[in-house]
Amino acid sequence: MKSVRDRLQRMLDPADVRLDGARRWDIRVRDESFLARALAHGSLGVGESYMDGAWDCADLDGMLTRVLAARLDERVRSWDDAWFALRARLVNLPKRRAFEIGRRHYDLGNDLYRAMLGRRLVYSCAYWPNAADLDEAQEHKLDLCCRKLMLGPGMRLLDIGCGWGEALRFAAERYGVRGFGDTVSAQQAELAREICSGLPVEIRLQDYRALSGRFDRVLSIGMFEHVGVKNYRRFFEVARSCLEDDGLFLLHTISRDRSSQSIDPWIGKYIFPNSMLPSAAQLTRAIEGLFQVEDWHCFGADYDRTLQAWRANVERAWPQLGERYDERFRRMWRYYLAVSMATFRSGRSQLWQIVLSPRGVRGGYRAPR
Amino acid sequence: MKSVRDRLQRMLDPADVRLDGARRWDIRVRDESFLARALAHGSLGVGESYMDGAWDCADLDGMLTRVLAARLDERVRSWDDAWFALRARLVNLPKRRAFEIGRRHYDLGNDLYRAMLGRRLVYSCAYWPNAADLDEAQEHKLDLCCRKLMLGPGMRLLDIGCGWGEALRFAAERYGVRGFGDTVSAQQAELAREICSGLPVEIRLQDYRALSGRFDRVLSIGMFEHVGVKNYRRFFEVARSCLEDDGLFLLHTISRDRSSQSIDPWIGKYIFPNSMLPSAAQLTRAIEGLFQVEDWHCFGADYDRTLQAWRANVERAWPQLGERYDERFRRMWRYYLAVSMATFRSGRSQLWQIVLSPRGVRGGYRAPR
Repeated sequence: MKSVRDRLQRMLDPADVRLDGARRWDIRVRDESFLARALAHGSLGVGESYMDGAWDCADLDGMLTRVLAARLDERVRSWDDAWFALRARLVNLPKRRAFEIGRRHYDLGNDLYRAMLGRRLVYSCAYWPNAADLDEAQEHKLDLCCRKLMLGPGMRLLDIGCGWGEALRFAAERYGVRGFGDTVSAQQAELAREICSGLPVEIRLQDYRALSGRFDRVLSIGMFEHVGVKNYRRFFEVARSCLEDDGLFLLHTISRDRSSQSIDPWIGKYIFPNSMLPSAAQLTRAIEGLFQVEDWHCFGADYDRTLQAWRANVERAWPQLGERYDERFRRMWRYYLAVSMATFRSGRSQLWQIVLSPRGVRGGYRAPR
Repeated sequence: MKSVRDRLQRMLDPADVRLDGARRWDIRVRDESFLARALAHGSLGVGESYMDGAWDCADLDGMLTRVLAARLDERVRSWDDAWFALRARLVNLPKRRAFEIGRRHYDLGNDLYRAMLGRRLVYSCAYWPNAADLDEAQEHKLDLCCRKLMLGPGMRLLDIGCGWGEALRFAAERYGVRGFGDTVSAQQAELAREICSGLPVEIRLQDYRALSGRFDRVLSIGMFEHVGVKNYRRFFEVARSCLEDDGLFLLHTISRDRSSQSIDPWIGKYIFPNSMLPSAAQLTRAIEGLFQVEDWHCFGADYDRTLQAWRANVERAWPQLGERYDERFRRMWRYYLAVSMATFRSGRSQLWQIVLSPRGVRGGYRAPR
């Protein structure tokens, strides 16, 4: 009979990752309990035992990239996975549950995000082609959004899931728009109002399904990941009903390469409860008859680079961030950033900016880059 | 009881088109039989009675744009439509039927295409952003394809549905590739061999389902419109099996804004038998698990402009083209070009160039424009 170690090693072989091997992307086992937890609980067991310090890896994101590129997570299906998938298929979250992500993730503490995200509180993929550092890349991303939306003075801009309001502030300051944003995080709403103070920007603590009014442009950056496939159609119906017939809608979202109704169990439990990444098939089915695709820009490699910059910031900042974030939290955060890098680097996830119009753009639409 | 004229006028009202009105986009009725044919046979009756000279319009493409933007074709469903739709749903064309489009459309006569298409025999949307005329715009389109595919010397390039071989010739001359192309038109194959003579390019008269071998890059320009939704998956499976794991596939196709299994009955009968335009939902479903989207470029407005250039060329050339193309053929051709302009100008159709990779591109893919 094979040992637990042998069985796990055999599973890792297609990714060329060795238990206690000498290469940077090999796994260093610090506690043998890791082996059984990985076999029994798959992704959840691997992530949790990393948080507990049961294993380490010099090149964590490199190792995870190999594992995801070989699609080992799809071969190793545990009972936990089946339960998470079943739950996602059966349950549609009521609106009050939508606020859970606000409390659980975005209310974590503005100090952590300030330390990690750089000069602007923008918690989404930056745009690196002509940028020297993270701050510049985030500014280029915000400007790219504004140019794609062809913003102009006096336009009414709706930002669905506005975060800390940085996109609305940028659009109001640089392009003279009047902004309106919603978020389900109380801490985000409070800080967003502060960040946009003195500008014609209104921030509300509310669910997107409560949105109303008509806008010249709609924007949504990094919020669609929290909508859930059962609500995709509803999300686009809301966006459509809030948009003028000759308007534009820019959707910025992480995606995955195959349709699924669930998220990685570890990410779902520790980082983004109730989140779900759309495939191209799921997304295009949800927009049909409501919007037409004007442009579809993919730059997932820029998210890898963004995450690396965030990691550098946060690792440097832990000493100042105090005891609120203990060693287990830090290892959780490190694992979260590494596994996110790996999803983009392995091609399993993409970053999409999609420009949509209700009825086509007269004379055609040329997307800037 | 309302007259036939009143009933047709009422149908046209949402498009602001008047029977015998004074504006350039109004319809001038020359034979009253047009009214009943339009009511009884919808799109087919309108097109056929135009061919017969039963009506005219000073701004034919402008009128058709209004009609399509108001989606009148979807409201006026005739028995013909129902029959065409049913047939499309039930029937999957055997391979020998695939050659029908070759005989019926592309074998029409190289003289007609030479007169219409300009210096190069490229029968697909040109790329106009930096072009002064059609010839330059077609050259820019071919170069755009080569740059998107990151072609280099010695690469093996497969062109699925290679037409008259102009893309393969361009790629072989400018980028040093070795080309392979297939077409189902005997006249195209013959002329393509001539056009590519002296270059490392092989042309075969065969159906795409008979393709084999492995290539560094795959290209398909304006052929997917003839594949049919029942064969989409098969088409992408063939493309995938012909492509190296680290290769790129550029698909250039016309699309439509909503999923359907049929084509406009007039277009199906007179211009492109057995053709079908994909929606984003149909296309993304067909590629899932085979390819990942690296870039999705939309430039339908460039097709409107391309068609206008083709119309100018062909209208100038009729006197030289001889009696083979009689007045009814010329009116058919004029209607075909005008209705095609209208589908793009109304936003009902788009032109897509989609770059696909089997497993993502290491380090990310930046699409040129």
